[in-house]
Amino acid sequence: MNSETLRQDFPILDQIVNDEPLIYLDNAATTQKPTAVTRAITDYYNQNNANVHRGVHTLAERATTQYENARETTRRFINAKETAEVLFTRGATTSLNWVAQSFGDLKVKEGDEIVISYMEHHANIVPWQQLAKAKKATLKYIELTAEGELDLADAKVKITDKTAIVALTHVSNVLGVVNPIKELTAYAHQKGAVMVVDGAQSVPHMKVDVQDLDCDFYAFSGHKMCGPTGIGVLYGKREWLEQMEPIEFGGEMINFVHLQDSTWAELPWKFEAGTPNMAGAIGLAAAIDYLETIGMDEIHEYEAEIVRYVLPKLEAIEGLTIYGPTDPDKRTAVIAFNIDGVHPHDLATAMDMQGIAVRAGHHCAQPLLKYLDVSSTARASFYFYNTKAEADKLVEAIYATKEFFNHGPI
Amino acid sequence: MNSETLRQDFPILDQIVNDEPLIYLDNAATTQKPTAVTRAITDYYNQNNANVHRGVHTLAERATTQYENARETTRRFINAKETAEVLFTRGATTSLNWVAQSFGDLKVKEGDEIVISYMEHHANIVPWQQLAKAKKATLKYIELTAEGELDLADAKVKITDKTAIVALTHVSNVLGVVNPIKELTAYAHQKGAVMVVDGAQSVPHMKVDVQDLDCDFYAFSGHKMCGPTGIGVLYGKREWLEQMEPIEFGGEMINFVHLQDSTWAELPWKFEAGTPNMAGAIGLAAAIDYLETIGMDEIHEYEAEIVRYVLPKLEAIEGLTIYGPTDPDKRTAVIAFNIDGVHPHDLATAMDMQGIAVRAGHHCAQPLLKYLDVSSTARASFYFYNTKAEADKLVEAIYATKEFFNHGPI
Repeated sequence: MNSETLRQDFPILDQIVNDEPLIYLDNAATTQKPTAVTRAITDYYNQNNANVHRGVHTLAERATTQYENARETTRRFINAKETAEVLFTRGATTSLNWVAQSFGDLKVKEGDEIVISYMEHHANIVPWQQLAKAKKATLKYIELTAEGELDLADAKVKITDKTAIVALTHVSNVLGVVNPIKELTAYAHQKGAVMVVDGAQSVPHMKVDVQDLDCDFYAFSGHKMCGPTGIGVLYGKREWLEQMEPIEFGGEMINFVHLQDSTWAELPWKFEAGTPNMAGAIGLAAAIDYLETIGMDEIHEYEAEIVRYVLPKLEAIEGLTIYGPTDPDKRTAVIAFNIDGVHPHDLATAMDMQGIAVRAGHHCAQPLLKYLDVSSTARASFYFYNTKAEADKLVEAIYATKEFFNHGPI
Repeated sequence: MNSETLRQDFPILDQIVNDEPLIYLDNAATTQKPTAVTRAITDYYNQNNANVHRGVHTLAERATTQYENARETTRRFINAKETAEVLFTRGATTSLNWVAQSFGDLKVKEGDEIVISYMEHHANIVPWQQLAKAKKATLKYIELTAEGELDLADAKVKITDKTAIVALTHVSNVLGVVNPIKELTAYAHQKGAVMVVDGAQSVPHMKVDVQDLDCDFYAFSGHKMCGPTGIGVLYGKREWLEQMEPIEFGGEMINFVHLQDSTWAELPWKFEAGTPNMAGAIGLAAAIDYLETIGMDEIHEYEAEIVRYVLPKLEAIEGLTIYGPTDPDKRTAVIAFNIDGVHPHDLATAMDMQGIAVRAGHHCAQPLLKYLDVSSTARASFYFYNTKAEADKLVEAIYATKEFFNHGPI
């Protein structure tokens, strides 16, 4: 793949910010949208828009077909067994909350254990805290190694016969580290626990096969993979989804509504109350088509190449600390770092003055930052449309910023 | 206002369906989008897209400003006192579920009563059934008059000192009737109950002032008012929202995340976990700007004119029954009807063959249809971009269909 050619598909990247060409390195927060996605949304609204499932007229049939085709595209993309296992949600956060709320209510009892890790995003921490409190269950954290990987020995201590749920991120949004989900899923199953995976940082960057992983639930967001905002996915095994109660109630998800009680529709509609985000699902399918045209393996390999290229250059900067594995093969292109004597917010502001968008803060991972003993970090996160020339400019800009803060404004 | 001129803003309306010009009369299900809305979405993605609130870089600041400006536009549109009272949700269904789940959990006790009516949409029935079951509360239904209006005498019998919540639709999605929400809110407050309003069918069609109504909660959807799918609003009084627990947990909605517990952000962000639907909110604000340029009073008056024009023509058709008030001033342009001897699905299919999109079914209001003693109806629902010429064609098509079914295919 050629990032220079691909970036032409992203009109937003072709702009000047603070007198410099924009270099967008905040892809772990959200990604940009190719014209294929904005066009798919506009075409849907301008040609086929209607409410789905309930209509017999032509537009309603077209909209329903397009919406359900988007589900099939998503199913194929993650290799779920059937579309009944693919639920459209508002985003990965909603997906994880649904599991904690509905599956948690069904399966977690007093004294049970829920196991997460120190590298989780708040979306994969707070729902489990709430569940643990409600059920008088115990929430346990898997430790990390000095290199910022999951401590697998500790994982095997923490996951026990009392464990009901293991919930782990596939890729850390701070450390960039890729966790061995398949291995851990097998171990969790051996102990009688289910595996819930936060895939927000993995699905956009590598081929994910939920049947191969054998996880029970897998959550991700459209907006982090070139898709629209307001759409996400919850994959769940039919076995569990069938037992779970819906979270939201209303139109579409019912079979019969009597005065005092109701019965639910079949999967997947049982979980999709009200008018779905049709344009969101259709935009997500367009994003998947776009990513697959490039190739998920090609994207993954290109990002690895970027990491191998830029990581040594960053490591060579005096006073710069990188969090997470130093082995480029163990991480994605999410790079959190700090520079001695420069507050990350000041660093991000100085970068912005040079047209470079990086993030600074706790990255919705306060327990991890406390574990790392820092209050905040800067974070540069690359996607396939970022070039090596941009990586060079990031490095140059860090040198310039260091210089500026060491010597003060001239 | 001139519907002929306005419809040029809607590219979807300019198409041929089954060899006839499309006549879209399914606006109670979802509305079409003007170019101003699709352009606002595309412009956001092509110019300013970034994750909101957490970034210091230029795009993040622009996206945050645009997203929060959308909230202010929405606040002004419904005249909420402050933006802290305006929550962005996935749609009216999610909004109503949040009230039932969070406010219901906070305020409803065993033996309390929840009062709804026979004309509610499933989204304003099923969440209350679930709440009533969980809390051992009683769910009561206000009767309707023979004309399909709320029976106000019965409302005053059903709403008592034991009533915790009254939840009513502002406008029925089947009968088109407009309910006296202001009066009923005052009555509910007198009895110590709160008023929850389903505004999905009102906000798109008339000026709504939540402070004037004095309701406690007000829910509506973007997609029924020329806005995008996947975005809705929950208005709630600060007094209640402050006491309520959030429904979803994750990034953005927290203040501090400790290992076993967390604290919440200020309103409105306490309720908005994860990356919000930025493009959805911005598209909704563009829809509001578009509607306000026409004028909500002008839209309301024009739709009333359509009703006064078409209702007598429909009533003149032999064997045609209209549900809901016959007085054009008591209803919006949602017209549900049946024709003797023709199943509504067959009618809708026959209409579709003539390019006319109407809906047939239970309209997510099974208790109402049972109350009316019909299993389904056809429904034609107009918006400001529909013309009198289209209303004429609807009437002609009904005559042609009656003819066809009475005499069979030639």
